[in-house]
Amino acid sequence: MHSLDSLVALHPRDPDTAIAQLDRSYWNFVGQYGGVSAALAVQAIRTDPRSQGDPLSLTVNFSTPLADGVVLIHKELMGQTRSTQQWQLRLMQEVDGQPVLRTAAMLVQATRPEGFERTELVPPVMPASQDVPVMPRGGVTWLERYEFRMLKGVPGQVHDDTYSTGYVRDFPPRPLDYPALAALSDSFFPRLFLLTGSVNPVATISMSVYFHGTAAEIAAQGDAPLLCTARARRFNSGYTDHTGELWSEQGRLLVTSEQMMWFRHQPV
Amino acid sequence: MHSLDSLVALHPRDPDTAIAQLDRSYWNFVGQYGGVSAALAVQAIRTDPRSQGDPLSLTVNFSTPLADGVVLIHKELMGQTRSTQQWQLRLMQEVDGQPVLRTAAMLVQATRPEGFERTELVPPVMPASQDVPVMPRGGVTWLERYEFRMLKGVPGQVHDDTYSTGYVRDFPPRPLDYPALAALSDSFFPRLFLLTGSVNPVATISMSVYFHGTAAEIAAQGDAPLLCTARARRFNSGYTDHTGELWSEQGRLLVTSEQMMWFRHQPV
Repeated sequence: MHSLDSLVALHPRDPDTAIAQLDRSYWNFVGQYGGVSAALAVQAIRTDPRSQGDPLSLTVNFSTPLADGVVLIHKELMGQTRSTQQWQLRLMQEVDGQPVLRTAAMLVQATRPEGFERTELVPPVMPASQDVPVMPRGGVTWLERYEFRMLKGVPGQVHDDTYSTGYVRDFPPRPLDYPALAALSDSFFPRLFLLTGSVNPVATISMSVYFHGTAAEIAAQGDAPLLCTARARRFNSGYTDHTGELWSEQGRLLVTSEQMMWFRHQPV
Repeated sequence: MHSLDSLVALHPRDPDTAIAQLDRSYWNFVGQYGGVSAALAVQAIRTDPRSQGDPLSLTVNFSTPLADGVVLIHKELMGQTRSTQQWQLRLMQEVDGQPVLRTAAMLVQATRPEGFERTELVPPVMPASQDVPVMPRGGVTWLERYEFRMLKGVPGQVHDDTYSTGYVRDFPPRPLDYPALAALSDSFFPRLFLLTGSVNPVATISMSVYFHGTAAEIAAQGDAPLLCTARARRFNSGYTDHTGELWSEQGRLLVTSEQMMWFRHQPV
């Protein structure tokens, strides 16, 4: 079974709670890769009998690092209209017999009618994915779950700015779906690493994802590489952000994603 | 009293609930301007005795339109570390004796140490604010609460794209603070209006705000105009987004803000 499918293999405990059992396939330095929380939130709602429509916007707030082992995913349908649903989620783990909040999330789902289409953002000019070499996988564990082909913004090198372009997909390749896309939305390297060429202490505080692509566009992607681009907007007083984009190679903007991140950096 | 101060004059009901009494000073077509919810969320936490630090990231999800009258603002401190707090908020109103969810929000606050500063985003090149004429105020009521000087992207005209630049501040002018900045984060016109030159049906689904500016930078702004710029990234299948920026005239990026919006548009 693909590691992403193992990750999101949820079991219902009661109508409002799903259970995940996490190993360390997506391990980051001190806990799960942040995309794990995003994928679990999306999957917990998609497997809920009340679910209507598809993910439209997701905000994931990271409180304490998600460990391996059992995760309780509490779901609340806060409100719904004919075409949208507002969900609240909390990912909890037990520590010394006490429930601890790991991640809080809000997910909006929507039923999307066909209609007016216009993309204003322009994808970066890139060679075809097969012409960009695959980066060696590894470092921390979660990086082994993805295949990166970076044209600009290779980690481990010092860059003049934080703008990066490249391609990314699950590894091994796997047909794209909403949980995979939610997880991929956290796959942009911390921008500070690109400035320093090293691995500074960082921690994501909040990530938001807008799903611009429809279910049909996401299904059409199959397991092809996604064009990924990101940049920081500002570093200031201990916090920084980035804004990222995931495009199909045919120029469809599937996801935009922002995150605010704590960092430590003492320039010499 | 300034209409914004009246708006955010909250009264505690119990430790976990604040009460606001809304008039129609910030009325939009069918309910309160979305910035009202953002300002109330920020102010409800800032006036809570448990509050530590300053707003860092805010996500506001709009469920049903906020009417005038009494609003109950439920607050929950979901988690905290030495330097951050994770808050959950729900804005409720009674309809026929039943509580109805209007807005759900998540707010992260942080205590921000001084340190590394770098702004990568470049503000648009603009004439000084006093050289850009003030737009006539009016239309819907909330527009009377702001002074806009638009250089590009004047509503009521048909534009080739949705990119806008200009200046905005409270009207009458009022020293900037976090509730005001939260409210201003929703002041970007719906981008669709710029394409069509008219007023299409739209409704914000979710808005996220990152507070890049520190308390000192926000205080230093005083009541001067803020540089505002925004653009849509994609319109697709009934939903669109925009990303916006608020800068000081001295080039400090104070806020970035994204929102996902429902729209209806039948091109002829």
